[in-house]
Amino acid sequence: MSTEPRSTGEPTGAPEASFRIGVLGRGTVGGAFTGLVLEHSERIQRITGLRPMVSGVLSRSVGDFETILADSDLIVELIGGIEPARTYVLQAMRAGRHVVTANKQLLSQYGDELFAAAGEHGVQLRFEGAVAGVVPVVRVLQESLAGARIDRVHGIVNGTTNFILSEMARLGIGFDEALAEAQRLGYAESDPSDDVDGLDAAAKMAILARLAFGAPVHLDQVPYEGIRHITPHDMEYARELGLGLKLIGTAERIGEALSVRVHPAFLNPGHPLASVGGPFNAVTVESPAITEITMSGPGAGGPQTATAVLGDVVSAMIPPASPPEEMVPMPIVTDVVSAFYLHLEVADEPGVLALVAQVLATHGVSVKSVVQKGMNEQARLVMVTHPVLESSFFAATEEISALDALRAPPRSIRVIEEEF
Amino acid sequence: MSTEPRSTGEPTGAPEASFRIGVLGRGTVGGAFTGLVLEHSERIQRITGLRPMVSGVLSRSVGDFETILADSDLIVELIGGIEPARTYVLQAMRAGRHVVTANKQLLSQYGDELFAAAGEHGVQLRFEGAVAGVVPVVRVLQESLAGARIDRVHGIVNGTTNFILSEMARLGIGFDEALAEAQRLGYAESDPSDDVDGLDAAAKMAILARLAFGAPVHLDQVPYEGIRHITPHDMEYARELGLGLKLIGTAERIGEALSVRVHPAFLNPGHPLASVGGPFNAVTVESPAITEITMSGPGAGGPQTATAVLGDVVSAMIPPASPPEEMVPMPIVTDVVSAFYLHLEVADEPGVLALVAQVLATHGVSVKSVVQKGMNEQARLVMVTHPVLESSFFAATEEISALDALRAPPRSIRVIEEEF
Repeated sequence: MSTEPRSTGEPTGAPEASFRIGVLGRGTVGGAFTGLVLEHSERIQRITGLRPMVSGVLSRSVGDFETILADSDLIVELIGGIEPARTYVLQAMRAGRHVVTANKQLLSQYGDELFAAAGEHGVQLRFEGAVAGVVPVVRVLQESLAGARIDRVHGIVNGTTNFILSEMARLGIGFDEALAEAQRLGYAESDPSDDVDGLDAAAKMAILARLAFGAPVHLDQVPYEGIRHITPHDMEYARELGLGLKLIGTAERIGEALSVRVHPAFLNPGHPLASVGGPFNAVTVESPAITEITMSGPGAGGPQTATAVLGDVVSAMIPPASPPEEMVPMPIVTDVVSAFYLHLEVADEPGVLALVAQVLATHGVSVKSVVQKGMNEQARLVMVTHPVLESSFFAATEEISALDALRAPPRSIRVIEEEF
Repeated sequence: MSTEPRSTGEPTGAPEASFRIGVLGRGTVGGAFTGLVLEHSERIQRITGLRPMVSGVLSRSVGDFETILADSDLIVELIGGIEPARTYVLQAMRAGRHVVTANKQLLSQYGDELFAAAGEHGVQLRFEGAVAGVVPVVRVLQESLAGARIDRVHGIVNGTTNFILSEMARLGIGFDEALAEAQRLGYAESDPSDDVDGLDAAAKMAILARLAFGAPVHLDQVPYEGIRHITPHDMEYARELGLGLKLIGTAERIGEALSVRVHPAFLNPGHPLASVGGPFNAVTVESPAITEITMSGPGAGGPQTATAVLGDVVSAMIPPASPPEEMVPMPIVTDVVSAFYLHLEVADEPGVLALVAQVLATHGVSVKSVVQKGMNEQARLVMVTHPVLESSFFAATEEISALDALRAPPRSIRVIEEEF
């Protein structure tokens, strides 16, 4: 059934074209996940040809696993921890169900058993949400880079510690103060040990090492060190030398062996992970044929993990037939709003700036900054505008180009001002 | 057959567990691709359960399309351009074959026809290599973010122009000089028009817009502007204000409509695309639920595109049964080489630095830089070592911690020195 989701053969009364998802766990991620399924079911049906529906949710007090299993084409495990998650996941795979999980503890400690069961029963075991939230590192290692020899994976795979280190660097505060701020903002749990001592990152690196090198790596084989001992002095040193200080997970080949480890490290400013700030995660994969790929995005959080889990569910739904998404035409906007840099070479005489400013104002173009530099007989005016409809801006520059004082055609380049 | 690749039903004598790939095109990418298939066939068999083999290669002078089609489970199209690529791709899908292509012209101009044919015949049409080389943006938009509403895609999707702009910024040279350098290094073709005028980026953005918004977007609907008019003055301005100047492709929702466009733009230094230099590509996907994901890596090149194409082939092979990769145990290294930052608080008296240096030397730890700061009775010694076996370093710090002059336990943090 799991390989032929179109005809389930189960007497549930579900319509032929539906895909039934049994959800284990009713926490933040579980709630966000069921919401996303409802919200995006039409779009997913367009992509996969099947309409996803949540056929049952198991919580500590409500629901029966056997019933949910019987009513599902795929099981999403969001209970966390080892038991009963392990038993349920194994039982689901033995019953021929694909499994999607975000459970890093389970995968890093019982990976051999789980992957063997998936192989034996011919089902998919997907777990993007277990590693770096919605940053698609699992997918990239398993599929995109299946044809590449991977030498090293470097990652910032814990958002809590990255937020704490970013705040320490930004404000010059100590670990305790930054941790309190992280807890206040919901980036750290009330018992932050697993995050700040590196265990969470170690579990994720064990999973990534397994994927990158096809070798069975257990959490016990990953030495880890956290960030409690980092002081403002270390941050000051980093700032003086322009270095970034991050909690880095590494999985790399050393000859014919592997090293997998987690520890804080200083990074040169040119390193792709050095500029990753706040609660973000990022992973760099190095391979001789392709040099490197870097992926970054928000670390685990309810909506992010739920999005990653749903992405896995969609991937599992796509085969065997993958009718591409049905297209819905949308109108195309031809005139958009943009800020502009405008470069003018003008006669260096009184009143030119006023003239230019007046033309701009006539067309509703508001100037944010202007620099004027004299060069003998002529001057260079460089200005940046506030965002304006492009048609208005170009109408203004056309009029400006006809001014007697212009010594060369106006030149303009758009400016993207992100609200970060 | 294509949905059941295990039993092909074709009288080719291929073993049951093989997966036959017909390759159209014998250029740089085609050559790199067939090499990768050979090199990684065992690993791919472990991942997918099927052994990939190139069953035929079509070039202008050698091979017959009908024969190759009959002998293949999947067709890889690397001819480029519109015809005969379009006819072959359609014919392959009508015959029930999955198709993998890196042909951006074809997808951006005949996307409607191609996607409709894939849907009608229940085959997969995959094209990661057509957009950003090995940067997995297609996979992320189609699968990872299937459960996310996407608001905007910003990208540097042309490596040639990014290299030219990076060189102009770095060396203060003009466009022509930077283009000549790009041509010398193989980053630009002898006729660079499609790249430097923005057409290549426009085709890629049309494809990304289609994926991000599920709307049929044609190359003709994408206004584009290139970088020939960018001058050293513009770069000087950018440097003065700390801005980056990039050729940016944008696909975004504006109300219920879309805007898709390509133009140079100044970016704030905090923008995730601002720091992407050289011939790299990068794409940022923005969605309210997940904030944003950024992916970067080398742009198109023979090995990169071939890797992306093979990744697509593997994804198409995985269903229906996806036994996870068979594990091969590898030894774990417990003692690795690393550079260290070492922070010591010592009595401020003569000879302490010499003593510390001697202990380090005894253990083979070589000091790269040292800073000493006095603080009344005691001093702070901060040093950075050259790379050394961790066990040697820790043996040295253990010995140092026993010195009478130490006023606090030594503290150390690893330093990652990338060879960028």
